[in-house]
This record gives sequence, C-alpha cells and structure tokens, in this order.
Amino acid sequence: MTSSVSPKTASSRSCLAIVLAAGEGTRMRSDRPKVLHEVANRSMVAHVVATMVAAGATEVAVVVGPDREDVANEARKVVPGAKIFVQRERLGTAHAVLSAREALEQKPDDVIIAYADTPLVSTETFEKLRAPLADGAGVVGLGFNAKDPTGYGRFLMSGDQLLDIREHKDATEAERAITLCNAGLMAFRGEVGLPVLDKVDNKNAKGEYYLTDIVAIARRLGHSTVVITVAEEEVHGVNDRAQLAAAERMLQDRLRHKAMAAGVTLIAPETVFFSYDTQLGRDVVVEPNVVFGPGVVVEDKVVIHSFSHLEGAHVASGAAVGPFARLRPGASIGTKARVGNFVEIKNVQLGAGAKVNHLTYLGDATVGANVNIGAGTITCNYDGFGKYRTEIGEGAFVGSNSSLVAPITIGNGAFVGSGSVITKNVPDNALGLGRGRQTVKEGWASAFREKAIAAKKK
Amino acid sequence: MTSSVSPKTASSRSCLAIVLAAGEGTRMRSDRPKVLHEVANRSMVAHVVATMVAAGATEVAVVVGPDREDVANEARKVVPGAKIFVQRERLGTAHAVLSAREALEQKPDDVIIAYADTPLVSTETFEKLRAPLADGAGVVGLGFNAKDPTGYGRFLMSGDQLLDIREHKDATEAERAITLCNAGLMAFRGEVGLPVLDKVDNKNAKGEYYLTDIVAIARRLGHSTVVITVAEEEVHGVNDRAQLAAAERMLQDRLRHKAMAAGVTLIAPETVFFSYDTQLGRDVVVEPNVVFGPGVVVEDKVVIHSFSHLEGAHVASGAAVGPFARLRPGASIGTKARVGNFVEIKNVQLGAGAKVNHLTYLGDATVGANVNIGAGTITCNYDGFGKYRTEIGEGAFVGSNSSLVAPITIGNGAFVGSGSVITKNVPDNALGLGRGRQTVKEGWASAFREKAIAAKKK
Amino acid sequence: MTSSVSPKTASSRSCLAIVLAAGEGTRMRSDRPKVLHEVANRSMVAHVVATMVAAGATEVAVVVGPDREDVANEARKVVPGAKIFVQRERLGTAHAVLSAREALEQKPDDVIIAYADTPLVSTETFEKLRAPLADGAGVVGLGFNAKDPTGYGRFLMSGDQLLDIREHKDATEAERAITLCNAGLMAFRGEVGLPVLDKVDNKNAKGEYYLTDIVAIARRLGHSTVVITVAEEEVHGVNDRAQLAAAERMLQDRLRHKAMAAGVTLIAPETVFFSYDTQLGRDVVVEPNVVFGPGVVVEDKVVIHSFSHLEGAHVASGAAVGPFARLRPGASIGTKARVGNFVEIKNVQLGAGAKVNHLTYLGDATVGANVNIGAGTITCNYDGFGKYRTEIGEGAFVGSNSSLVAPITIGNGAFVGSGSVITKNVPDNALGLGRGRQTVKEGWASAFREKAIAAKKK
Repeated sequence: MTSSVSPKTASSRSCLAIVLAAGEGTRMRSDRPKVLHEVANRSMVAHVVATMVAAGATEVAVVVGPDREDVANEARKVVPGAKIFVQRERLGTAHAVLSAREALEQKPDDVIIAYADTPLVSTETFEKLRAPLADGAGVVGLGFNAKDPTGYGRFLMSGDQLLDIREHKDATEAERAITLCNAGLMAFRGEVGLPVLDKVDNKNAKGEYYLTDIVAIARRLGHSTVVITVAEEEVHGVNDRAQLAAAERMLQDRLRHKAMAAGVTLIAPETVFFSYDTQLGRDVVVEPNVVFGPGVVVEDKVVIHSFSHLEGAHVASGAAVGPFARLRPGASIGTKARVGNFVEIKNVQLGAGAKVNHLTYLGDATVGANVNIGAGTITCNYDGFGKYRTEIGEGAFVGSNSSLVAPITIGNGAFVGSGSVITKNVPDNALGLGRGRQTVKEGWASAFREKAIAAKKK
Repeated sequence: MTSSVSPKTASSRSCLAIVLAAGEGTRMRSDRPKVLHEVANRSMVAHVVATMVAAGATEVAVVVGPDREDVANEARKVVPGAKIFVQRERLGTAHAVLSAREALEQKPDDVIIAYADTPLVSTETFEKLRAPLADGAGVVGLGFNAKDPTGYGRFLMSGDQLLDIREHKDATEAERAITLCNAGLMAFRGEVGLPVLDKVDNKNAKGEYYLTDIVAIARRLGHSTVVITVAEEEVHGVNDRAQLAAAERMLQDRLRHKAMAAGVTLIAPETVFFSYDTQLGRDVVVEPNVVFGPGVVVEDKVVIHSFSHLEGAHVASGAAVGPFARLRPGASIGTKARVGNFVEIKNVQLGAGAKVNHLTYLGDATVGANVNIGAGTITCNYDGFGKYRTEIGEGAFVGSNSSLVAPITIGNGAFVGSGSVITKNVPDNALGLGRGRQTVKEGWASAFREKAIAAKKK
Repeated sequence: MTSSVSPKTASSRSCLAIVLAAGEGTRMRSDRPKVLHEVANRSMVAHVVATMVAAGATEVAVVVGPDREDVANEARKVVPGAKIFVQRERLGTAHAVLSAREALEQKPDDVIIAYADTPLVSTETFEKLRAPLADGAGVVGLGFNAKDPTGYGRFLMSGDQLLDIREHKDATEAERAITLCNAGLMAFRGEVGLPVLDKVDNKNAKGEYYLTDIVAIARRLGHSTVVITVAEEEVHGVNDRAQLAAAERMLQDRLRHKAMAAGVTLIAPETVFFSYDTQLGRDVVVEPNVVFGPGVVVEDKVVIHSFSHLEGAHVASGAAVGPFARLRPGASIGTKARVGNFVEIKNVQLGAGAKVNHLTYLGDATVGANVNIGAGTITCNYDGFGKYRTEIGEGAFVGSNSSLVAPITIGNGAFVGSGSVITKNVPDNALGLGRGRQTVKEGWASAFREKAIAAKKK
C-alpha cells in the first residue's frame, strides 16, 4: 500500500487516520450528504481530512456510505491517495471503523478516529490525542466537560485511567452525574486496534457495535487507556442546519481572531466572512460587511471597503477595493490600484495605480499601469460562443460608458472617447471614437409633453 | 352582524377577539401611530389581527384612538370585516375593552383580549388561552415568570385559581416578591364578560378602569379564574424604538430557525432578514447579508448570494441570484436562470436558463428561455409618462451595453450588437446593430496630454 | 501661553487636560501609531482630545512619542492650539505627565490626565472627575469594579479616602482580593500637581515612575485624595486589534441607542454603522446593513434602504436612498428626491423630487427639481486632467444609458434620447439625441451561430 500523504510532524511514527463519513444526516433535510455541507466555504469532510494531514497522518482512510462517490471525490481533492472504504450497513461506530479493516491490517503505529461531521477539532488536539500512544498508551479517548451532559456517553475514570465509556441510556443515576463526556474521537496504537475491535459485540439496547466498547476491552487485555480533554465548543457536531450555522459561527470567530492577532483591522469582525484559506497582510483594513470566497490573497496595507465580495482574487499592497466591488476568480489587482463601486472584475490583470472606480465590468483583460477606466465601461468579452481578451496599454484613458468589443487592443497612452463602441484596435497615443453625431430638435420636448398629457386625458 | 372571518380551529365555539390598538406611543417619538410601526415588514396591528384569525377568532374587533382611520384600514387589510371601535377618552384598559361593547353584546362563546403593541404572541398561546373557557373557566389570565418583575402586575394565586391581579404600585412587599406577572392578555367567556366589565370601577391611584380588576369581580360572582403561562420573550411589548428593534430581532430569530429546520442553509443566520411571509424551498442556500422584503417565494435548490435584496419576487428551482442583485415586485426568475451582480429586475418574466449576469436593468419585460443579456444592458421602459414593454425571444443574445428602447421586440435567436441603441424590432435570427462608426485619430492623445499639462502649468 | 480652547462648562476654573499619547502599541502589529487607529471613523486621540474640550478643558496638552508629528497633527485638527510635548524616553506614566511640565507650571486650577488609547470615557465622567477638586480634593482617582481584577492596580480605601494604588504585581493576597481598580485616569489640583509629581521615584520592580504614586505622596503632604467610579466598559483600553474592535462595538452601541431614543427606527441596530458625527432626524428609518462615513446629515422622515453607504452627504426630509446606493462627499439630496440601486452620487446638488433610480454615476453636477435620470446614465466629468460640471435644468428627462460629456448643460424641461452621447448643450425644452442609426441584418444570427458551432467542432 502506498500513500500520497507526507508526514508533517516531527514524529517518525506512522499514523493512519480513519475519517467516518458515512452518516446519512437526515436531520439536515437535504438531498446532499451531510458531510458535503460547507463551513467557511469548505465541505466538512474536506476540513477533517485536511486536519488529519496537518496532524501528521501518513495514511488517510475515509469510510463512506454506499454510492457516495461524491464524498470520496471530495476527500480525494484534499488527499489524492486517500483510501476509500464503503460501510454497506449501518451497524454502529465500531462497525464503521472496521470497514477500513484493510488499512488497519497494515499495522500503522498510531490510528486516529475522526468524524467528518465534527469539523472544528484542531490539529493541535489531534496531536495531543496521539501523544500518549508514543508513551505506551493503548487507547486515548477525547473528552470534554459538558455544560449539559444529557445524551452524551460518560467517561468512567480511575485516576488518569479511563475505565469505560457509558452511553447515556445505559448509565446509572450516579454515572449520569459525571460531566466528563465522550467526544467520540479516539486514538489507539495500531497493534492494539484490530484485536480489540474484533472483540466488540452488539449485545446492547440498540444492537449496535459501539466503538466506545474498545476501552473496556483494551483494559481487559492489559492496555493503558487514558483521556485528553478539549473545550466543548471544539467537538461541536453537526446534525442539522442550525448546528451547521453554529459551526460556521465558531470557525468564523477563529478566523477573525487570527486575522486581528496578525495585524488586520476588522472594524466589525462579526460582519466579515472569511474562507478557510483567506490570507491577509499586515495593516489591512476590512470595513463592515465584506465576504471572502475561497482563494483570496490580500497584501499589506490594502483597504477593503464595505459591501465587497472577493473570490479567487489577489490584491497587491496599498490597493483599495470597494465599497460595492466584486472581484471574481483571476482578478489580480496591482499595487495601489483602485477598484470602486459597482465594479466587477474577472480574470483581469489590473496594473499598478490603475483606477476602475465606477459601474464597470472588466472580464478577460490585461490593463496596464496607471490606466483610468471611466464609469460605465464594459468589456464585451463574450459573443455567445467564445470569450475574447481586451488589452489596454499603460497610461491609457478609457472614457465613460465605453464598450470595448473584444478581441481588442487599446494602445499605451491611448484615449477612448466617452460613450464609444470600440471594435477596432486603437494605436498607442491615438484617440478612438465611435459614437453617433449629436442632433438637437428645438421645442421637441415641449411638444412631446403636450401630446403625452393630452393622450393621458383621453 | 356578519363576519368575514372564517373559523380556523376545530372548535365550534364562536370567538370574539378584541385588539386594543388605541395607545398613543409617545415614547416612540414618531408621527406615526405606534401600532403601525413594523416588524418583519408588517405592522404590529396587522400581525396581531392575523394571529387572532389563525387562533380561531370568528369576529375581530379593533379598538382605535380618535381619527385613526389609518390604523383601522391596516386592520381591515388583514380582515376586511373587522369591526372598528373608537376609544374617545383614555380611561384605562377596561374602558378600552368596553369601547367594543356592541361586539360583546353579541354574546360570543369566547372573548380574547389582545394588544396591538405585543406582536410576538403565537397562535398556539392564544389557543391555550381559550382552551380553559370550553371547560368552564370564566376568566383566563396570561402570565409569565419575570426575570425582573418590577413594574408588572402580580398574579395572586391559590392553587390553580387566580385570585386577583395586583398592580406593582399597589402591591405589598410580600406581593412584590411574586414573579408570576400579568402579560395583559386575557380570555373570558362571552356571557361572563359584560356583567363583570360593567362592575369595574376607577377607585385607584390613577383613577383608571383596570381590566385586571375583572379577575376579582368574576370570582365574587362565582366564576373560576385560571392562568396559563408563556415565556417572557413572547409577551414582549413595544413602547419605544429599542423595544421595536428587540421585537424585530426575536421575530427574525423565529423565522430563521423555522427556515433552517425546513432544510434551508443560512450561512450566517443573524445577517439574513426575512419578511413575515417569506417562503423558501428545500436545499435553498442563503449566503450572508440578504434581505427579503414582502412577497418572496423561493423554490428548491436556489442559491441567494450575499448582498441581495428581494421583494415581491418568485425564484424558480435551481436558479442563482446575486451577489449584489435586486429583485423587485413582479420579478419571476425561471428555472436554473442566473441573475448576477449589480442587476435590477422589476416586473419581468425571465425564462428558464436565461442569464443576466452584470450591471443590467430589466423592467417590464418578457425574456425567453436561454437568453443571454450582456453586461450593461438597459431596458428603456419609461419616457416620463408611460411604461412600455420589452419582449426578448428564446435564445436571443443581447450584446453588452445595449439600450433597448421599449416598446420593442427582439426575436427568437436574434442578436443585438454590443453598444447598440435598439429602437426598431429585430426579427427572429437577425442582427440588430445601432451604434456610431468608429474613427481613430492618430497622435490625438499625446497632443491632448501636452496641451492639458501646459494648461495646468499656467 | 495662549490657548485656542474656549471653556464649555459653567465652571470658571481653568483646566489643563494632559492627554498621554506616546504609547507605541506594539501589540497592534501596525506601522501606524496606536492612537491614530480609529473608532467610529475618528482616531482615538481625536476622540479623547474632543472629549477634553467638551468636559471644559481650557488648555489641552498632548504628550507624544519622538517623531510623532502625525499624532500631533491629528490632535491639532481638533484643537488647533493644543500644546504638544514629546516624551523622549519611556520611563513611566508620571514621567510622561512631567513631559508637559511647562504646561503644569502655568498653575491651572484643575488638571485632568487622560489616555489616548482609552477613547470611550464620557464627557460626564470627566466632569465628575473634576468636581471634587473645586471642593478641595487634591487628587481624584477614577475607579471601576473589575469583573476580573487580575493585572489591574487596586484602590486601597479608607472610608471615602483613597490611601494608595497598589500595582497588581506588588499587591499582597489580601490586596488582590480588592475589586475596585484603577482606570489610570486622574484629576488633581494644579497647585498640588508639580510638587507631588516631582517626588515620585522609580524604586520599584520595573524601575519606572508611576503616576499612581502621587496618591500616597499627596496624602503625606496633607491633601485629600478621593475616588469616583465608572462602569468597567467605559474605561476599556485598546492595546490590540481585538480590543479596538471591542471599542468600536461599544461606541456603535451607544450611537445606535442614542439614535433610537431620538426617534429613529433601526430595524437591525447591530448592522448599522455610524460615524461619531452622524446626525439623523425624527422618523428616519434605517434598514439593515447601512454604513455611515463621516459628515452625514439626514433630515426627518428619510428612508435609508439596505446596503447603502453614505459619506459627507446631506439628505433632505422625505427623501429615499437605496438599496445599494452610494452617496459620496458633497452629495446633497433634495426633499422627497429618490436615489435608487447601484447609483453613485458625488459633489451633486440633486433637486427636490428628482429621481435617480438605477445604475447611474452623477459627479460634479447640479440637477434641478423633478428631473428624471434614466438607468445607466453617466456624467463624464473627468478627462484625465480636469473635472467638469454638468448642469441639468428643472424638469428635464435624461433617457437611459446616456453619457453626458461635461462641461455640459441640459436645459429646463429638455429631453435626452436613450443611449445618447451628449457633447453639446441641449436648450430648454429641446430634444438632444446622439446615437448611431439602427441597421438590421436578416438571418445574420443564424449564420453566425452555424459558423461558431462549426468552428467549435474542429
């Protein structure tokens, strides 16, 4: 078995991560599988798979439901060599883990069990979860102190040893008083895994194979079983759309605090929405109500004004964007350039110091340094079949309300008269003009009004 | 007396709802009567009247202040047959109720007293309030356990019987320790009502006729008087703009949770604003910062991108709207159609699969399936007097920055050249072109710049 | 020494305010000095200097770090006659205050010490802080009851007398139990100040001259030292971007409540962002998601629809703005005028009842009453060198998608045909038309499609 995952931690121990992603998620009331729903513009399964890699997994196995090639593909987008296992029947969490039997049989040093619907667990937590394995622990449970433990499995402890995990419905009154609860995630040594998992039975109220049972079994076989704990918020699971929204809010808050700590001003942090991969430089100012789609890089000292929407865009240092600007994929805004209101830019290299201040659509274009694009300019880049490019040379001035019919080149220092339709190239330093001659009809408006008013009276 | 209200509950008991809407609301600091201020885009009085009908009122009486035809009309918009009564003097709540004496004299089985400035009380609460009447209770009070009871009337109980309601200022220290407070709303049996109300006097500190006094009077006459309770939030009253904003927030939260429970993704629920009547299908995704005005229906699997504003619009399944789109009344967006940024659509049937992606105004138009509307297109639908229609046939392609001067027809499969002003119909599959011929003046821009720079130096 | 500050309180006592603005603010991770970061669109130092004047300071001294002419200039923007003192070394707060020795030597009646990174302290609090001085107190400390006092200096009290201020790291366990903490701000009598400050030494763990030491020294010299207290929120200091965002939120909440109390409807207050100087009339309605930059005045009964951005603009009574409108500096919107979606207006007098409803840029223009500006209109006000004006007379009608090439005049009652480029003045009541003649090529689109499809197949 080969793996495309390269170890990212100092640890030399091999690590198999098993991501359980087969849940149906009926409470989502969705035609889309639950784990493909997104937080911060990335599917939950992709978040968890990426975290596995960051936490040092050398092999990633994803357990999906039948006919869920879409979930498998989403995992492979993050880790192309991820092994996909199908859980054909839903017989419990231990059964789900055993769907990846083939991977477990490779005897990895460490095994992590993660849940694709629990997307907020940090890399650091997974690292902590693995750590006791190197020191000889057989199984490590992940616990949290629940504000309200009702419904959660309880950790039965003796000193630092985890004796057993009791499901809420099987718990005694005394056990229900315990607040240290099971987050579900676990780690165990590879050599401990299979023998213990194969001993899990389904003799319980629901007739399921519980992963939680491996704790007591491992102890009976003489293994040490311990616990590490995290904040309840971090192990927030998503089962419905309200929980999805809550996960989004928590992840956004993390991203916002990370940005502010790095020297970004967020005037109203709660109104700025990041993607998981947004990169912002120092002394960037983001005004209220800005949305970052995936793939945005903003360099130092950029101001993003209110009501802006960026996706797949690069904004160089000192530039200003918005308000009411939309940068779409391939927009590259040059140093100290200015993109103003009601402007859409897609697949455009905008030169340093260029200005596109008002009501403009630039698509599939290269715009030189210090170009001025007048209000209402449209690059006509599409004819219903093909997309064509517009090239505008350095220092050119495009008058307001012009239509540039691509493919077209406006030369360096050239000038386009306001209201022109430009269909032929304009040479360097030339004037291009294409508009009707103005006529004036004296008294026309008075006559028109009289007629219109008379017509209304009829 | 006839009534336009049809019973909506299984109950066969007749029910008169008296909505008190005469309060002046001076703390609103507004020229508009308080109960006409809106939450979720509907006036408070309309909310309460609509809830009355939903809760099974067979007759609705609205008590308004003198010369408040505006309030009366607002109530009639919901229930055309609502009876309007004018409270000429402000002598207390019992006096307000007795303004509707004529309605009470019809001896309805049940009577509900509601307040037009308390718009969040649910249909279910009113149904619960009525329920004990059918079992013989004479009066039913609505109570809530107040976090801070200061200022509220207290419910004096003996077992499940309500003995009396004590106004805060008349209460003893012991009575002030009671947290079960009077929400003001009440229900009583129709036969109990008038005789009891006529016994209320104004021998109290403020010299007012208190509705609260009917409890003790009813008990003296041998009637059973009981209580049902609700959450404090539900009986939130509105006396100033901060309380209006709080009511808005609570109602929005209800609407957001309802949407999410039905299978809508709200990425940031707190940034999405609904109207009371917004309808959203399954697997609709609403991105952050979207505002729904009244009358919006969105079908399944639609995506509403950020910074969109919809009102009176219908969006068919699979369509995508925004970011920065505005749909105004009469916008009907076809299946899988696409409305992009800085686009305004009003009174337009947009065909299936049609695309209106950028910087466009479409008004008073019919647009066929799979039409492509280029960036910067404007339907010129108004000449200062009349509005005219634009018809665009299936599969047509309208080039960017075109002006379509209505009334006008662009045929099926026709093509409009970029930057054209179209004033005459374009036949099916024809090209319509209307723009000036381009000229180029070599060296003009260099000469212009030299002159401009020289002029600046002077 | 002269002062440009005029007293604003009834007090006849002279008052020197010393604003400490020399902190480096490294935790901001910014190239900009901390006190120039803004809340509600005004730098923190400007907020504090303005509050000093409002609280009755007759002289303002600002202590800045070396080479911080930018901070000095920001203070002078508020108080042109502010005295600037440079603290060359950072040897503690008492040392910072003594940097203004020259001002202290003028023996003002009262001295206030304020911090430029603590921008939320109200005028009223400063007035309260000064008040005991007139009654003979020597030093007045400003205290707050801390939720978590860790890290703060503690106030050691005896009755109403402040005995000493103990830094957290120097405090005993018993002293650490005290929750009344030092906010840092102080007031003292001018005659008490210098002699006491000159006795402060640096014999402590950090080797700094603490301002807090003046309390014990003043007591030893026989002066009364007392305390006034404020809410912890009010003395919120800003040391990093998260604290800056928190300050912004608190100030915005104040501004929002002030607006609502004055009779403004904020449908969703938490989504409306004000500047420190925003002025709103009675019965103004602000919909969700509106941003006010500096210098905005909105008169009575105006509606600001969602997604609007205003700066330096005046909106007269009964007008409506937005959604998706941008008013820039110099926009003056007339009574009952209407500015609609995707409209930018800059340096324009828009007449009463005028309508600019869609996708328009108006810059450097005067627009008469009842003018109708069609969708897509652009004033072409810039030629790369100069800015030119557009004058549009009363009652004119500008057809959609027109380009008005300034300098230009459209007469009263004139009419501009849709899609025109207007380069010459249009007289009163005339029609101006400037567009290409339309041609139609039958069958062109079918032929084009066939060719395009064939080309794609290759």
